[in-house]
Order: sequence, then C-alpha cells, then structure tokens
Amino acid sequence: MSALRITVWNEGVHESTKDPVGMDEYYPDGIHGALASGIGEQIPDATVRTALLSDPEHGLTEEVLADTDVLLWWGHKAHGQVDDAVVDRVQQHVLGGMGLLVLHSGHFSKIFTRLLGTTCSLSWRNAAEREAVWTVNPTHPIAEGVPNPLVIPEQETYGELFDIPAPDELIFISSFSGGEVFRSGVTFNRGRGRIFYFSPGDERYPVYNQPEIKRVIANGIRWAARPGVDRVAPKVSNPDRDWYL
Amino acid sequence: MSALRITVWNEGVHESTKDPVGMDEYYPDGIHGALASGIGEQIPDATVRTALLSDPEHGLTEEVLADTDVLLWWGHKAHGQVDDAVVDRVQQHVLGGMGLLVLHSGHFSKIFTRLLGTTCSLSWRNAAEREAVWTVNPTHPIAEGVPNPLVIPEQETYGELFDIPAPDELIFISSFSGGEVFRSGVTFNRGRGRIFYFSPGDERYPVYNQPEIKRVIANGIRWAARPGVDRVAPKVSNPDRDWYL
Amino acid sequence: MSALRITVWNEGVHESTKDPVGMDEYYPDGIHGALASGIGEQIPDATVRTALLSDPEHGLTEEVLADTDVLLWWGHKAHGQVDDAVVDRVQQHVLGGMGLLVLHSGHFSKIFTRLLGTTCSLSWRNAAEREAVWTVNPTHPIAEGVPNPLVIPEQETYGELFDIPAPDELIFISSFSGGEVFRSGVTFNRGRGRIFYFSPGDERYPVYNQPEIKRVIANGIRWAARPGVDRVAPKVSNPDRDWYL
Amino acid sequence: MSALRITVWNEGVHESTKDPVGMDEYYPDGIHGALASGIGEQIPDATVRTALLSDPEHGLTEEVLADTDVLLWWGHKAHGQVDDAVVDRVQQHVLGGMGLLVLHSGHFSKIFTRLLGTTCSLSWRNAAEREAVWTVNPTHPIAEGVPNPLVIPEQETYGELFDIPAPDELIFISSFSGGEVFRSGVTFNRGRGRIFYFSPGDERYPVYNQPEIKRVIANGIRWAARPGVDRVAPKVSNPDRDWYL
Repeated sequence: MSALRITVWNEGVHESTKDPVGMDEYYPDGIHGALASGIGEQIPDATVRTALLSDPEHGLTEEVLADTDVLLWWGHKAHGQVDDAVVDRVQQHVLGGMGLLVLHSGHFSKIFTRLLGTTCSLSWRNAAEREAVWTVNPTHPIAEGVPNPLVIPEQETYGELFDIPAPDELIFISSFSGGEVFRSGVTFNRGRGRIFYFSPGDERYPVYNQPEIKRVIANGIRWAARPGVDRVAPKVSNPDRDWYL
Repeated sequence: MSALRITVWNEGVHESTKDPVGMDEYYPDGIHGALASGIGEQIPDATVRTALLSDPEHGLTEEVLADTDVLLWWGHKAHGQVDDAVVDRVQQHVLGGMGLLVLHSGHFSKIFTRLLGTTCSLSWRNAAEREAVWTVNPTHPIAEGVPNPLVIPEQETYGELFDIPAPDELIFISSFSGGEVFRSGVTFNRGRGRIFYFSPGDERYPVYNQPEIKRVIANGIRWAARPGVDRVAPKVSNPDRDWYL
Repeated sequence: MSALRITVWNEGVHESTKDPVGMDEYYPDGIHGALASGIGEQIPDATVRTALLSDPEHGLTEEVLADTDVLLWWGHKAHGQVDDAVVDRVQQHVLGGMGLLVLHSGHFSKIFTRLLGTTCSLSWRNAAEREAVWTVNPTHPIAEGVPNPLVIPEQETYGELFDIPAPDELIFISSFSGGEVFRSGVTFNRGRGRIFYFSPGDERYPVYNQPEIKRVIANGIRWAARPGVDRVAPKVSNPDRDWYL
Repeated sequence: MSALRITVWNEGVHESTKDPVGMDEYYPDGIHGALASGIGEQIPDATVRTALLSDPEHGLTEEVLADTDVLLWWGHKAHGQVDDAVVDRVQQHVLGGMGLLVLHSGHFSKIFTRLLGTTCSLSWRNAAEREAVWTVNPTHPIAEGVPNPLVIPEQETYGELFDIPAPDELIFISSFSGGEVFRSGVTFNRGRGRIFYFSPGDERYPVYNQPEIKRVIANGIRWAARPGVDRVAPKVSNPDRDWYL
C-alpha cells in the first residue's frame, strides 16, 4: 500500500487565544501538531499535513482533499465560522471514500452533524475526572493493541445521552469517576466513506500525548483509509433491463 | 391510546399538471387522498389531515407539526421547491419524537437526505415490472399481517446501490422482474423520532390502492407514532457530579 | 390485547439453601416471588405463573410453554442441572415467537448461551458498588418512563468484556463505582422471538423490589410479548417458481 | 503479514457417491479442490490444506485448527455425521479468533447453527435460475473489486426467509429469475472470531470456477483472518477494584 496521506484539521482558536494558559507546555505545536506528531510515530511512512480554520478555504481546498486519504477534525469554539461551502466539499469527499476521524468536541462540528443528521448533543462536565475506555468489540482493528481499559488520568467528562444514530460499530465505552458512561469510540459508514468518532482529547489535558491514545488514532486512520477507491460519491443511475440476459 | 394524528404531505405536482394522464382515474383525490383514505380504512379512529407544497408554509406550520404524531412524505418533481425553513422545522419535530414515513421518490427529499446525511441515490427504471416485497424481519410490527411475498403487478423499478446508512432495521427486500433488488422497507431512529422508508408507490401505478400496501403503511404509522413523548429534541446538558453520591 | 401470560422461572437454589442468610427478609417469597409480585403491580391484568428447577420438567412442560407469552429466566448456581431436553423445548418456543427475559446471572444459562452462540462470559466483582443504568436508546419502548440514570445503591459489579454478539438494540449501559461499564440492557431477535437481557438483580441485594426496576421488567415483557404469533419456528420450504405469475 | 494458513473442509459425499453425475468434469478434484485452487490463484502465498469428513477426526484435530487462520466449510448431505466433539472444538477456535467461511448448504451445518442459535432455514428450489449478486455495502473489503451485480448464469435458488440473526454486516443481496431474494453475503462476529456466510456454490453448477466468485472468497478470507490474535475465547474474570485508583 502506498504511503497514507493524512490531513489534520484544527480550528486553532485555543492556540491563538492562549486559552487555556499553559496549553503550550504540553501542546507546544498546538493540538494539530501533537496529533501530527503522534501519527508520525505510529505510521512512519504516512504523509501528514495540517490545516487551520485561518488558512485560505480553511486549508481544505479541492486539491488538498483530493490528496487526502484520511482527514482528522478537531474543533470546539468556532464551529459556526466554518464555511458551508467547505463543509459541502468535505461531505462530498467523505461520501466518495475519504476517511474522517472526528475528535472530542468535534461532535458539534458542521461536518459531523451534517453526516449524521442528529443534534449530536451530549452531557458534559469539566472536573478533571478519570476516564476508563473499555473495549466492547474485540474483533475490530481499531481495538488492536489497545489496553482494556485504557485509563486517562484526567479528562473532561462526556456522558449519555449522546444523540447520534445507532453506530455501525460500537468499539469503546468510557466511564468517568463521576459515574457517567459514554460511547467513546463509534464508527459510521456513509456513502463510500468511513467515519470514526473518538471522544478523548481536550485542550485542558495532554491526552493526545498518551501512547495508547496515539495507537487508537493510528488504528482509526488505517481502518478509515481507502486509498484504492476512486473518489466519487454514489450517483443515481438508470440502467436498461438487458444487462443480465 | 388517544386517536393518532396523521398528516399526509404531498407535493401535488403530478395532480396539478395532470401528468401522467389518467392518474385521476386511480387517484381521483390525488396521491395524498389515496393515502389518507387507506389510513382511514386501516386506523378508523385516526385523525387524518393532508398538506400540499402549494399551501402556505407547505401546510406544515409549527401548529400543524405540533399536532401531528406521524407525518407521511410523498414528493418527486419539486424537492428543490421545499423551503429550507420548513425542512428545519420538520427535522426538529422528528428529532423531538414525531414519526416520519417517507414514501417512494421521497428518498430524494430534503428532509430525508438531511436526516440521513448521504445522497440517498439509487438505480431506477420505469418498465412496469413486477415487484415482489419479501419480509426478512418477521418479528417486526411493520411486517404483521403482511403476505410474504407481497406482490405488486406493475411498479417502477428501484435497485441497489441505495446510498443510505445501514438501517437500524431491515424489514423488506424487493426483487423486480428485471433482476434488481432493493431494500424497500427500512427503519431509522433519529433523536427521539422514528423513521420508516417504504419504496413502493409511484404516480403511474395504483399501488396505494392495494390492500396489502395500505396494511404496511398503517403498520408503519402505528410503529412510528410516539404520542406520549414531549416534543423536544435531545439537548446538551451540564450536570454537576453530585446527583448520585 | 388479551391478558399476557407470564412464566417466571427461577432455579430456586439460593432460596432452598438459605444462602445468602437474610435473603428471606427482602425476598420472603423468593426471587421468583419478588419478580411475580412486581409484574402483578405493573401489569395488573397479566396472568403470572412461577416455575422452579425442582418442579417436574423444571415446570416447563410443553403445555406450560404453549401457554406462555413471555418467559423470565433467573439462574445462578445450577445452570448445569437444567435438562438439555427442556432447553431444546424452550429454544423452539423462543424461535417460534415466545418472548424471553434473561436476568442477571442468567447470562451463563444454557438457554441464553444456546441462543447466542458465544461464551456470554463477563467480568464481575461483588463489592456492593453503586450501579448507574443509563439509557442510550430513548426511542425504545423498554426505556419508557425509566429515569436516566436509574441508580441502584448497591449491586454486584458486572463489567466488559461481555462476550455476546452485537445486540440488535443497545438500550442501557451501566457504570459502577469501581469504574467498570456494562451493556446492561440489550435485545436480540432470534427466529420469531424477542429476547431481552437485563443485568441488574442479584440474590444479595433487593434490586427487584425497586420500582424503577419493576418498570423496566414490565416494559421488557410488553415489548417481548407477541400474543398474535402462531408458535412455529421458521421452517425450510421448497416452493415452485410460479407463485407470482 | 506472514502467509495465511487456510483449511478447506468438505464433507466429500457428492464426490464419493458420484452424485451428481458429471460433477467430476467441472470439479475434477472435488469441491474442496476447486476452492483450494481458487484460493491459490487469488492468494498465492497462502498455505492451503484440505480436510474431509472421512478423515480421522474429520481432519480437524486440535493441531490442524491451531495451525489454521481461516476455515472454509462446505457440507450438504452429511451434517448429522459431524462429530459433536469436533463441532465443540471448531466453535472454541472461532470464539478464540479463527476465521470461518460457511458456504452455500453449510447454512444447515452444526457449526453454523451452533454459532448463530437459530434454525438457519431458508426457502430453496433447484431450477437452474440466474442469480444476480448485488453489493449493498460498498465500503466493505469483501466487496472490493466485485462487479455489481455479479451474475451467475445457473444456480440453485435460495430465498427468504433466511432464519439467521440480523447480521453484523449485510454485504450482498441476490435475486433469482424466479423472483426470490436472499441475503447472500453476511458477516457475524462471535467472540474474537469473524464469520462470513456466502450462499453461491452448489454441487450441480461450476460456480466456484467463476473468477468473480474466487475473488469474493479470497476477500472473505483476508477479512476473516486474524493472524495476530492469540487463540483464546473470552473468559470470565474477577478483577479487584484497585486497578485505576
């Protein structure tokens, strides 16, 4: 298989506003930089590019998307600032076969709610609680080599009801010290594309520096990538009836 | 259970344009009239109202939707003329618990593609072929009392690939004389609402006058109706951590 | 709908061995008695019968099963003592349309593992932990009227990996004070029958006396009951090809 | 990835009884020989072994299974002659991570019904009808490079109701000249193992010599193989509560 082409998208607001203070200690190159570095460690031959909300067309031009096997999406404060035309373009590429990893607060992104059709709302609380990520689908490639449970010492709490369609595959369920549970690793097929949502990761905790988390994200990228697929969304067709006679 | 409140929506273009010629013989009151009449036969105590694209706000005001347990949707020629604000309103009611039945060419309606996130494209051919609708989920209430197969003498052919997310439940699969297969009866849960898509039914064939078809539609309405539910879409919440300690 | 016919099966070993001491205080009529009483409160017109391992044919004769819409199964210590011929009989009735509710340690019963094909093993610990049962499928009738979360002050801990096939519907996920998560409410369709597994309930804690638990079990019974269905498992057939011409 | 280790099991009754007459023309080395040869063409570096009902322990000793990544199963006339102890052994290996491909009339094999828990009955007719195999899951690796539809000129007809649990993934749906439909390509996860059932293939038609069919089977083998997995079925565990504090 030729080298995977990965694009890590980050809105970049926490980085530019220096909020939270101290994030530049554990994420000196930003959340996108931490993600890109983890991918580089796990998939050495991957080509990794980053893109930001502040880039022209948010860094997601037709050329960039056509050259991307898997797109990672991290957003939180600025979902509303993402241009609908860019969302349309990303959606078309996902339906045509581009993989998409949506991370943490990206559950409220335009692209995720557009592809799922629901509110994608959830319950949340920021109390530095312990998150335990449990594997419930041991045959899934995204769970390969992941400890059960995967323990995150401090993390923002996400809880049910997570208003998503029933996922095609439920891979991880998390519990938090506070008692909440959350479907923290779920997959969806849409058109010819594969989507993996993974909830751990927040601007206040160095979650993406944790090796087991890097492993899950790398597994998700390998699972979502479909390099062979010609990037065309399913289309209506009107065949005659003689194809098979 | 109090009387179900049903709203049958039809774009009404085939009726107003007298196309196809002769439709007023088998559908003298239009497609919406035929559907409403079938529902009345099957669910005598239901309150059935009809609404048309040409009505103010397409007949789907907040008041009407708030007074509707299940909405039926039939559209074909004028999907693009449906006001996005009305689509937003219908989506909110579905996510809040209103049932939705999408029929035949409604697969390309704004509301259906909005709720599913995919192109909902398919393969089609108009050759008056025999459709056989087979039940593959015998425990489902929508299949109750439905012959297996349910045979439609002449119908427009729909074929795979039907570009929808994997349905929550697959109830019916159809075959056509031409060899195509189609997932003709599928359900989706979205938010607090239930959606049933049923593909038989076309302006050129009197499908909705067939008693077995009326039965399927009535079963679908009973399944999708959630009269007890207060009509609120899931919302984000931010609970403290002390509820259980 | 005519009155539901419910049979509550209990192996009855904890009752006969007086183990744990004190169970007769919160379950004076045994676990089967507590379940039957809760059903009587929730579904007043139901006909409720109980059956025990020590009864002839374990109280599950052909006549009893043919007269049962929904069978509840509670077992723990004596799974191996259940006669395979009785298990065959119960399986045939489930495949023919009898509802089955499997409770708590019944996950290891012959009938449950037979119907699912997996080990149904899990992780467990008896530490009187708090269980919080969260609803993740708000459109499901089994979740109707159930608080979210449903809190059980003290309960045996069950944890993943719960080795079951992916359920047809995931309704409840529990968390425990100890950090474990568990898919505590899941449904499976098998043949013409509906199966609901619900994990809360143990001989050491008065879980079945809790009103919210009684509500879940009653919802499960109503969902699993298919009184209209003639009790025949699907059979192979060999039709000629002219049925549709 | 090291070379895949494949075992093709065939009951071998049609071969030994020379029934149907002429099968040795299109399957000179038997059905197992045809399958093994197709796998060799598609996965040149695979190690392919065959096993027969008439072999000691049906050729499925602990040593053979421990050395098998994916087992193919073809049976028809002699399901009842398969030793239950061998079925137990195969089930344990599947639950521990061995892939299983069940072909055609293997739907009634002890191992398949054991793993699924249902009757696995279906409708059938031998009328040399055209089968069209349609892909409904375009993102699945088993569908890669498979024409849509895949047309089989003559085949035994299988039809719904196919009494299986709802599959984890529905990949192919077939239609037949006679009007039947059948879920002809379905997957199931059980324990740590992956199962693919594919219905085309019969002793009366040279289906397994068709290149597109060889491709589907090779795709299924690659998908079901989990060479990395240590071959242990999930087991009950009783952890203390201090792992995370």
